[in-house]
Amino acid sequence: MAMQLVENAAGRMVPTEINGKPAIPYKGVDEHRPSGRKAAPPIATCIDYPCSGNKVVKDIKTALEMCGLKDGMTISTHHHFRDGDLVSNQLFDAAAELGVKDLMWFPSASFPCHTPIIKHMENGVVHHIEGSMNGPLGDYCSQGKMRGMGVLRSHGGRYQAVQDGEVHIDIAVIAAPTADPFGNATGDRGPSACGLLGFALADSQYADRVIVVTDNLIPFPCVPWQIQGNYVDFVVVLDKVGEPEKIVSGTTQITKSPDRLLIAELTAKFVRDSGIMRDGFSFQAGAGGTALSFAIYLEEMMQDEKIKCRFVRAGSTQYTVKMLEEGLTDYILDGQTFDLEGVRSMRENPGHVNTSPFTSYNFHGKGNFASMVDVVVLGATEVDVEFNANVVTHSDGRLLHGIGGWQNCLYSKCTILPIPSFRDRIPVLVDRVTTLCGPGELIDVIVTERGIAINPLRQDLIDAVKKSDLPIRPIQDIKKEVEDICGGKPAPPKLRDKVVAAIKWVDGTVIDSVRQVASSK
Amino acid sequence: MAMQLVENAAGRMVPTEINGKPAIPYKGVDEHRPSGRKAAPPIATCIDYPCSGNKVVKDIKTALEMCGLKDGMTISTHHHFRDGDLVSNQLFDAAAELGVKDLMWFPSASFPCHTPIIKHMENGVVHHIEGSMNGPLGDYCSQGKMRGMGVLRSHGGRYQAVQDGEVHIDIAVIAAPTADPFGNATGDRGPSACGLLGFALADSQYADRVIVVTDNLIPFPCVPWQIQGNYVDFVVVLDKVGEPEKIVSGTTQITKSPDRLLIAELTAKFVRDSGIMRDGFSFQAGAGGTALSFAIYLEEMMQDEKIKCRFVRAGSTQYTVKMLEEGLTDYILDGQTFDLEGVRSMRENPGHVNTSPFTSYNFHGKGNFASMVDVVVLGATEVDVEFNANVVTHSDGRLLHGIGGWQNCLYSKCTILPIPSFRDRIPVLVDRVTTLCGPGELIDVIVTERGIAINPLRQDLIDAVKKSDLPIRPIQDIKKEVEDICGGKPAPPKLRDKVVAAIKWVDGTVIDSVRQVASSK
Repeated sequence: MAMQLVENAAGRMVPTEINGKPAIPYKGVDEHRPSGRKAAPPIATCIDYPCSGNKVVKDIKTALEMCGLKDGMTISTHHHFRDGDLVSNQLFDAAAELGVKDLMWFPSASFPCHTPIIKHMENGVVHHIEGSMNGPLGDYCSQGKMRGMGVLRSHGGRYQAVQDGEVHIDIAVIAAPTADPFGNATGDRGPSACGLLGFALADSQYADRVIVVTDNLIPFPCVPWQIQGNYVDFVVVLDKVGEPEKIVSGTTQITKSPDRLLIAELTAKFVRDSGIMRDGFSFQAGAGGTALSFAIYLEEMMQDEKIKCRFVRAGSTQYTVKMLEEGLTDYILDGQTFDLEGVRSMRENPGHVNTSPFTSYNFHGKGNFASMVDVVVLGATEVDVEFNANVVTHSDGRLLHGIGGWQNCLYSKCTILPIPSFRDRIPVLVDRVTTLCGPGELIDVIVTERGIAINPLRQDLIDAVKKSDLPIRPIQDIKKEVEDICGGKPAPPKLRDKVVAAIKWVDGTVIDSVRQVASSK
Repeated sequence: MAMQLVENAAGRMVPTEINGKPAIPYKGVDEHRPSGRKAAPPIATCIDYPCSGNKVVKDIKTALEMCGLKDGMTISTHHHFRDGDLVSNQLFDAAAELGVKDLMWFPSASFPCHTPIIKHMENGVVHHIEGSMNGPLGDYCSQGKMRGMGVLRSHGGRYQAVQDGEVHIDIAVIAAPTADPFGNATGDRGPSACGLLGFALADSQYADRVIVVTDNLIPFPCVPWQIQGNYVDFVVVLDKVGEPEKIVSGTTQITKSPDRLLIAELTAKFVRDSGIMRDGFSFQAGAGGTALSFAIYLEEMMQDEKIKCRFVRAGSTQYTVKMLEEGLTDYILDGQTFDLEGVRSMRENPGHVNTSPFTSYNFHGKGNFASMVDVVVLGATEVDVEFNANVVTHSDGRLLHGIGGWQNCLYSKCTILPIPSFRDRIPVLVDRVTTLCGPGELIDVIVTERGIAINPLRQDLIDAVKKSDLPIRPIQDIKKEVEDICGGKPAPPKLRDKVVAAIKWVDGTVIDSVRQVASSK
């Protein structure tokens, strides 16, 4: 039976059913209103938990058995260790030993270190993955090899999906750098400290069963309790839960490319000259090289003009920590530490505050932090002339990146994408993005090494920089110039009909589909 | 139609229906298993909340209107200001101005300062109160004047009732000493700082609508956010939300009575000589005069023997703060500050930790903190020879006290009630307590000025102090001696048939009823 696809409000063909459940096509920004009530976990009773508070069991396998692991269940994990996670692979090895099949893995994100899960998809233990897939797992999905459909959600969208009952987690497994026998857990201390555990918050609150896995068991109470033991069923002690030095892997290096340094500097100048950089302002920058360099330029400008932030939303790094410790911001509102200085600061500085996808990003809450941020600086793989952007697929159509908080951040007062105008002689500015992740009406400024394009919808920003010496240009002009350099528009990716993954919008609707790549073996 | 009463497992006659809803009679300790799922609040969407994060509206009346206040709704408040609350009375004045009737007031506790609510019960605005009633409101209830039945719940039981959907809060009103326009709120700072806001946690999580009322609005973010703005609909700014100096009112004075000092000292000696006082132990003591004096004696003994606590559960006071700051405990796990030193310490000391009825007391969680406490020292108005105890009514039958965390604390590893053997020449040790609040099997030791009685169920404790010089006596002997002194057993209270209030056990079942006093006008 062929999958039914319909055209959504963004003109993208999307499935109306995903992994056996009905899916709602994207209706436009702020057009979908949820109905109904939040998911309601079973009522527990202290009768079933030891009075001593000691919930420690022998190993992951035992904990899974005691949780009643069965075929077809959904198992969740978090990705605060990023490419240094040591728990998820052991988890599915244990599930395989127990002989269960067809599990849905629901990580907050997966990384190259999780390549062994491909084996468990091949042997039937794991049916499919719903969650961002960075690298090999994304490639596996792109080749149409996964039995179920991949579902990519933003950090806020993942919280929303769990909260709203779209995804029911049977068993959550939470790797914790420090925990007590009751299950209180924190990420900010212990030999494997990774900072925080906010990505596992929804899991702890809404899963039927919760297992905390730690390599640093301390006497009750574990303070702070980023994860509350009152949600936890079992505690397992392992030799090592993660390699925090690998948090840094991937995206978190300052750029050395002269073009990208120029882009970063132009971005900082735009923030300054548009008047966004004023006393008490706020910003968020991702952990990519250009975004990091932007933050460094901005910091210099703030010091020159003696301007201070009220808060920086982060992904914290040594650079945001320096700003906090030098008094350039009152607070870091942190969702994920990207290096070990971030971890240290989170532990030591009262102004370095632990946030979660609930506080920062959940679109089905009574507001969230993202819309209060004055300016956010994000990456993209492609942007079109209407400012629509892609962040998950490459121009060849392969699904190689997660969404992270990217979609959620688009709600900030000013969204800037500093991007090179081409990569490997392939234009980044395109007629139509391969995969639509962010609607153009929420994306305000594109900064390239060839000039800055402001979304015509933002006349206020156009006016604000009218008298500056910034190289403001129409996006079409920059695109034309790039096409001339690269010898024309990029070739469209070679794709098959099969939809291998769905991209959710922040409200749970489906904004686009990802198709199998034609080069699949 | 006469109310139907049935005999519960404790031999008490209790209603099977309370305020129109079915009620489950108490079945015994750990005998009632809940079924079903937690309450599920409506799914919100950011579409309905300002992107700026500014939820401030003009006044309480406006906020109530915008929340859709209607006849018969349930409105909740918290009692962290105790007798210094300035918000609840204004709230019901505003409701009266709006012309609504038959509201259910669901405070976490009420105090003499709330006497004006009697006027609103007389004029029909308030139908009845479910929540502890200290003083005049309890007396009003005892006289049978309230239209509905009073329902008294422990702090944990209140969380349980809201979590389990037994009580649905339509509008929660949370007085906050500091808040930001988004609704993030804290009790630990600001001109009216009261310490924490944990009693309002369930309200924020489960109410349909949440109003934060503050007299100290600061720019976003308010850190810490004891109450999360993502649950909040509206913010109202008032001149003054509470008088923190009145937190101290009532119970929190050290005793000067020689008898009570003796009782306090005996209690501390029992904790020491039974071996409970050992390195890394934990205790909780209430804020009554005897309990405070106990803590001071215990502290001296700890210093003599160089013993340190892992944690003190509190109700914090200057005495527990002193222990923390002198290094006699690693942590204060605080549920409610009882004086201004407690407020200061909560703000300043990382080891002074904010807890909630969810973490500490909710019996329908995956365990709670209460059962991990080595020893708890509590008060009582009456105790019988099977160690059953009363904490809400006087021997004349009048309902004058709340339950607080009392029932929840009975789950500690050792529960001690230090009580005078008589008050005003009326024996406190009785054949049958006027109102059953705590089952004797959870109460381990009674300390009086005439000796210490150990529950025969606790042979381990009897053995532990066998070689001490503590005055251990059978409870019957102490009771007999007291009756001889007082000229016999106390006269039974003169009560009518009408049930004016129900006492809930920690699992939501009904453990006893309170009847109208015969002297009612």
